[in-house]
Amino acid sequence: MSKKAVILLSGGLDSLTTFAIARDKGFECLALSFDYGQRHAIELEKAKKIALIHAAEHKIIRIDNFGGSALVDNGIAVPKQGISEEIPTTYVPARNTIFLSYALAYAEVLAADDIFIGVNALDYSGYPDCRPEFINAYEEMANLATKRGVEGKKLTIHTPLINLTKAEIIKAGLALDVDYALSTSCYDPIQEKACGACDSCRLRLKGFEEAGITDPIEYY
Amino acid sequence: MSKKAVILLSGGLDSLTTFAIARDKGFECLALSFDYGQRHAIELEKAKKIALIHAAEHKIIRIDNFGGSALVDNGIAVPKQGISEEIPTTYVPARNTIFLSYALAYAEVLAADDIFIGVNALDYSGYPDCRPEFINAYEEMANLATKRGVEGKKLTIHTPLINLTKAEIIKAGLALDVDYALSTSCYDPIQEKACGACDSCRLRLKGFEEAGITDPIEYY
Repeated sequence: MSKKAVILLSGGLDSLTTFAIARDKGFECLALSFDYGQRHAIELEKAKKIALIHAAEHKIIRIDNFGGSALVDNGIAVPKQGISEEIPTTYVPARNTIFLSYALAYAEVLAADDIFIGVNALDYSGYPDCRPEFINAYEEMANLATKRGVEGKKLTIHTPLINLTKAEIIKAGLALDVDYALSTSCYDPIQEKACGACDSCRLRLKGFEEAGITDPIEYY
Repeated sequence: MSKKAVILLSGGLDSLTTFAIARDKGFECLALSFDYGQRHAIELEKAKKIALIHAAEHKIIRIDNFGGSALVDNGIAVPKQGISEEIPTTYVPARNTIFLSYALAYAEVLAADDIFIGVNALDYSGYPDCRPEFINAYEEMANLATKRGVEGKKLTIHTPLINLTKAEIIKAGLALDVDYALSTSCYDPIQEKACGACDSCRLRLKGFEEAGITDPIEYY
């Protein structure tokens, strides 16, 4: 029987690749997505489809959020002038901390010791909760938080993309037959079409360009 | 203007005392409670009343839970034979991790750097997420998780009860005019009446007895 792993599946390019990597490592992946009022809620439809195609168990957790981000507050515009040195307004306070905390609870209930998250800290927007030092501190905390940890079971948070460029991520995914048409990245889509100008679109397009591959999704 | 603090307010004896201590320290307290399907949902009514009486802002967050605890699964009985050496079935996987993660997000949105939680590790049920080593690791992680942390603002998780016995907690609260009739502790109440036999009731009753004070709540 394969080992169970909880995977955070947003429906984006990174989480789709991470899902493929976890499956390739032989894990039975149980996917978690979050409905936190994000303006790009289309990603949840993508996540559902990805899980369905791969016959993976999938839960969507509804999260009350407190605002404070362009991704959840229509009064704050999504920046489209290019990636800056500063942490952008698309930053969502404590997002990955909350996501990982649900994953930790779910893993314990499943008696699983592995969580996969597709964070990366190279071609990214500078979000603090995507950095290796955050993930390491989270893992250390998580192992003190649970009954399973007290019993000596070691929880591992896998971040297979953390040191990859976007082009490397795409190449890794294609080597595992990932269909990137199943993913979305845009923070400000119109129906299924991406804007091509937000940070997330820019990073995605740059990645495909550097990988020498055509992005299969549509842009408006 | 007083500094804002987020306080986890369950409606129990410990969180009510913590709330009094935080107010006594001069903080403007913003209270968070969680509706996680707990069988003792009466505590949420207590929390509402406590917040109302003290004119504190109060949010109740609805959390999807994954089961795995006597507190959320009616198929698992609440143990009433006395406190054991083992972590009991009332343990809820990753509960304080999830609660603190919402508090962290809320604190960042409020531009607050202080969170209060009424955990204690003396007269307690051995829950791993009440121990000082967990809280310390959480605080370290939290300071790496947020934009506010990157900007050099230090988040502090205050645990004023962590080294107190239940009797000391009660005495500290009474010195601050806490009305313990406002609180509830029982895991398995019938309406407003407590069972007197679950771990939480036993710890409460022992605390009042050791403090030489009559518990003002009713038992069935």
